[in-house]
Amino acid sequence: MPRYTAPTKDMQFVLHDVLKVTEQSIPGYDELEADFTSAILEEAGKLTSEVLAPLNVVGDTEGCVLENGVVRTPAGFKAAFEQVKEGGWPGLDMPEEYGGQNMPYVMGTAVGEMFSSANMAFTMYQGLTHGAASAILAHGTDAQKDTYLPKMVACDWTGTMNLTEPHCGTDLGLMRTKAEPQDDGSYKISGQKIFISAGEHDMSDNIIHLVLAKITGAPDGIKGVSLFIVPKFMVNEDGSLGERNAVAVGKIEEKMGIHGNSTCVMNYDGATGYLLGEAHKGMRAMFTMMNEARLGVGMQGMSQAEVAYQNALDYAKDRLQGRDVTGVKNPEGPADPLIVHPDIRRSLMDQKSFAEGARAFILWGSTLIDAAHRGQDKDADGLVSLLTPVIKGFLTDQGYDMTIKAQQVYGGHGYIEEWGMSQYTRDARIAMIYEGANGVQALDLVGRKLAQDGGKHVMAFFDLVKSFIKENAGQDADFDAQFLEPLKAASKDLQAAGMYFMQNGMKSPNNALSGSYDFMHMFGHVCLGLMWAKMGKAARTALNDGASDVAFYETKLNTGRYYMARQLPATALHLSRIQTGADTVMALEVANF
Amino acid sequence: MPRYTAPTKDMQFVLHDVLKVTEQSIPGYDELEADFTSAILEEAGKLTSEVLAPLNVVGDTEGCVLENGVVRTPAGFKAAFEQVKEGGWPGLDMPEEYGGQNMPYVMGTAVGEMFSSANMAFTMYQGLTHGAASAILAHGTDAQKDTYLPKMVACDWTGTMNLTEPHCGTDLGLMRTKAEPQDDGSYKISGQKIFISAGEHDMSDNIIHLVLAKITGAPDGIKGVSLFIVPKFMVNEDGSLGERNAVAVGKIEEKMGIHGNSTCVMNYDGATGYLLGEAHKGMRAMFTMMNEARLGVGMQGMSQAEVAYQNALDYAKDRLQGRDVTGVKNPEGPADPLIVHPDIRRSLMDQKSFAEGARAFILWGSTLIDAAHRGQDKDADGLVSLLTPVIKGFLTDQGYDMTIKAQQVYGGHGYIEEWGMSQYTRDARIAMIYEGANGVQALDLVGRKLAQDGGKHVMAFFDLVKSFIKENAGQDADFDAQFLEPLKAASKDLQAAGMYFMQNGMKSPNNALSGSYDFMHMFGHVCLGLMWAKMGKAARTALNDGASDVAFYETKLNTGRYYMARQLPATALHLSRIQTGADTVMALEVANF
Repeated sequence: MPRYTAPTKDMQFVLHDVLKVTEQSIPGYDELEADFTSAILEEAGKLTSEVLAPLNVVGDTEGCVLENGVVRTPAGFKAAFEQVKEGGWPGLDMPEEYGGQNMPYVMGTAVGEMFSSANMAFTMYQGLTHGAASAILAHGTDAQKDTYLPKMVACDWTGTMNLTEPHCGTDLGLMRTKAEPQDDGSYKISGQKIFISAGEHDMSDNIIHLVLAKITGAPDGIKGVSLFIVPKFMVNEDGSLGERNAVAVGKIEEKMGIHGNSTCVMNYDGATGYLLGEAHKGMRAMFTMMNEARLGVGMQGMSQAEVAYQNALDYAKDRLQGRDVTGVKNPEGPADPLIVHPDIRRSLMDQKSFAEGARAFILWGSTLIDAAHRGQDKDADGLVSLLTPVIKGFLTDQGYDMTIKAQQVYGGHGYIEEWGMSQYTRDARIAMIYEGANGVQALDLVGRKLAQDGGKHVMAFFDLVKSFIKENAGQDADFDAQFLEPLKAASKDLQAAGMYFMQNGMKSPNNALSGSYDFMHMFGHVCLGLMWAKMGKAARTALNDGASDVAFYETKLNTGRYYMARQLPATALHLSRIQTGADTVMALEVANF
Repeated sequence: MPRYTAPTKDMQFVLHDVLKVTEQSIPGYDELEADFTSAILEEAGKLTSEVLAPLNVVGDTEGCVLENGVVRTPAGFKAAFEQVKEGGWPGLDMPEEYGGQNMPYVMGTAVGEMFSSANMAFTMYQGLTHGAASAILAHGTDAQKDTYLPKMVACDWTGTMNLTEPHCGTDLGLMRTKAEPQDDGSYKISGQKIFISAGEHDMSDNIIHLVLAKITGAPDGIKGVSLFIVPKFMVNEDGSLGERNAVAVGKIEEKMGIHGNSTCVMNYDGATGYLLGEAHKGMRAMFTMMNEARLGVGMQGMSQAEVAYQNALDYAKDRLQGRDVTGVKNPEGPADPLIVHPDIRRSLMDQKSFAEGARAFILWGSTLIDAAHRGQDKDADGLVSLLTPVIKGFLTDQGYDMTIKAQQVYGGHGYIEEWGMSQYTRDARIAMIYEGANGVQALDLVGRKLAQDGGKHVMAFFDLVKSFIKENAGQDADFDAQFLEPLKAASKDLQAAGMYFMQNGMKSPNNALSGSYDFMHMFGHVCLGLMWAKMGKAARTALNDGASDVAFYETKLNTGRYYMARQLPATALHLSRIQTGADTVMALEVANF
């Protein structure tokens, strides 16, 4: 049975030693003293490791079952959901007026990582609710907020997002679901939506579907799409539940993973819906939540890498197989533990350096979201908007790869479901796909974000790297050589790639788009390189200041050195690919494939 | 429902244009005229696409079921197995005296790829039988051969390989299964074996288990291991089946994939076994088949990449989503097909250039095995022994990655089991693990094969690359720049890595072993680079000679250019990692992970 232990110490290190949250002038951050964040993280850690983690395999094995229109979630899910609700976790970063605790988003992210590591499929029920509630919060009328938010913030009612239809996913302009205006101001929604996570289940009294549809007579394409609130049960004026609405689950999908979450085909058959936000501007309403949602998916990728790594590490320490070639390490035993072997170390260091680097990256991104939303900081908003496709695409690709590496440490046992390592890979796999497949993230990055506001945000990113290097260079020759020089080189590669796009994208946009995926990955490496440089600096400072936990900070430095030496140089390969342009990528006629 | 079409044209190109099999002086190769190989490949192609491929999803969905000691294979498997047997496919490359067709191994490999692409789990039943039969052929007494081979070559009886025990996989010296000598020369085998593919099933009259065990009083460790034949049913002198032997399936494992193959725990409870080969030399008997078995697993990796690619290509042509940024391609339709998008092209070209390069690599490796076995060519034997861990490790890692890329082309539909793309990834995953996990392959390559016979074989490989470049340079500036120069650079990287190992492995073997995995991958890239250079040359020659199928050969050249430009440069990254040695890999104390 796999285990999960919340990495609270590492989170505290990132929040306080690296990001120094209380020193940031973001509204609400002054409350984030180390004792306070520690109390929250420890509490969440306990819940996730003791309650949610043991249900992870159960969710995978039992899955969700549809019988007579009712979806039954796996045994134990409903009881655990009640515990989560009682603890007030779903509303951690929601406004107090709707029953939330009004904490910064960065705390929601830290806690969210734990939830997701412990049980990704389970956590999606509240994650989707959070997303739907955020949309109502941002675009709803006061009446809509009052009707839905208190229940959704408490997760008494859960939420869903209905975008995809059988023939359209990325290209939502092809959408066919219709909304027919009624005399009372409501709409009749008709159509079929697919891949609706948590579309139907038995854990809440009501389900509030947010549905994209086209109002009769709306403009063609994406500009004619509006967003609607469609409750499963109608809500009476006094807040009590009324009749069942004309929305029903058609089937639940058999998926590769996240079996504990019900992925539904939803049929809308003249269901009553209420316009959320402006008519024909449904995509805008969706996009305002996009940065948060995509950061959340990037976090899922790293969360699975983290928990898979924890278990791979345990196995590598326990399993006796072969001998250390440099000298027996376990003379009393019949063999040495796997962890003595350099290739096992390589794999574990890949996983560890990724998970810790990615955690810092996501938490940093969350502070940018807080700065943008709570602090009205437009530069932070622009920067996180630029980084969002990197967080989503790079961290889910790499996170997935790390679960594969963790599984590999187990040898044959990794392939047997009983050991739980297969589930981490199968669950992590979806994060590369949903909320915009990673190829679409790369397109968003290179096709939109790079040039946004005249390239202002990418320049700001480069300045940030440059000034970090400048401020910290020349104090310690080792730190310069091991951290700052590799970061400088990688950042230079990234700039060269941007330059290539500018110069050659003019001739044909395909010259840029053929390199978009590589660019997303090299950008991700530079971000993790920056994070490791910052973490390295923080660790050095702590050691220089005489910190007592020497081993922790030394380990940080060593893990950072590994990332800088072994992972960051990937930027050169990505750059060399990018610089070959579209010629070989687009050379074949379709018929000749 | 996914489809499979056998790539017979590409196989013919490799066999005749590239490898020029009939011109090689290997016994039996003179028969491999193009008409002859075409007839066989077309026939196998028909069987695999029409009979085996449709059963692939069935096998995954139904899996194998154990009831009262009997394992039921998925519906249709037994009937298909009869068809395969009637066609004589299992004995294709087996000696005529035991009912085989005595064809070269290279033909078995080409046909094997088709079988494996169409239905990997199904094909394992005959694959394991082939392996067990080969062991008996190589090490059995005449009586043993006469008893078992005719039935096994026909697959009336199937075979298994029993190595792993719960506490030992790679490190077989820890083995506990015992063999107690009996007065009649037989042994009583007792112990538990796990992960036994095709250990029990309902498709054959008898199952011949090859079991590693320690004879009472044998030396400790790996040097005390012997190999035994343990039939499920005892075989009477007249060849008829006698009593049930004391071997039984304990359970079948729930696995991530290859559900159609029964992976069994086998309990031996004083079962009667017969020594195969010499006492205490069981590992040697196993190792003589290792090159073939590992080449076969490498082939499984590429075979899943091939079939996944075929389906991803279909989907990319069919699915309408978005518009070509350089101009609408499908004005009549609501959107353009996915294949217009550069990032989809990149993914498809990665898959295509890998599958075709890997196919050439495997077929070339098979000719080396034929040269070694049929032609008694010691140099070929040494070379294929060197290349075996590369074929196994690199092709299964990359093959798996390609199935993930193929799945990604489908977006959300790739995650739904109904579309079949998940199965290819789940089935392909095992190939990275069994027959020696890929980390063990890397260890074998760097720790044993590089220095074997004084480094003679790796030098021969470099000479082969060098002389190919020398012989072909200076005839066509484009070919030089697009094919030969990149190959030269990659080969130079590989040599530099080998040099690093020699110089720094002296200080500590960990300096070499920390780079073993990267070395295996860079070696693989150089091999595929060599294959693409050879295929490019063959395509150029055909075009210069006025071949009628211009599009085919032009496509070959374009696909090769893609590999050379976009994939081969990965060697530089691997080299840079290798040259950082063990310092960062081994820096952490175990307690500080």
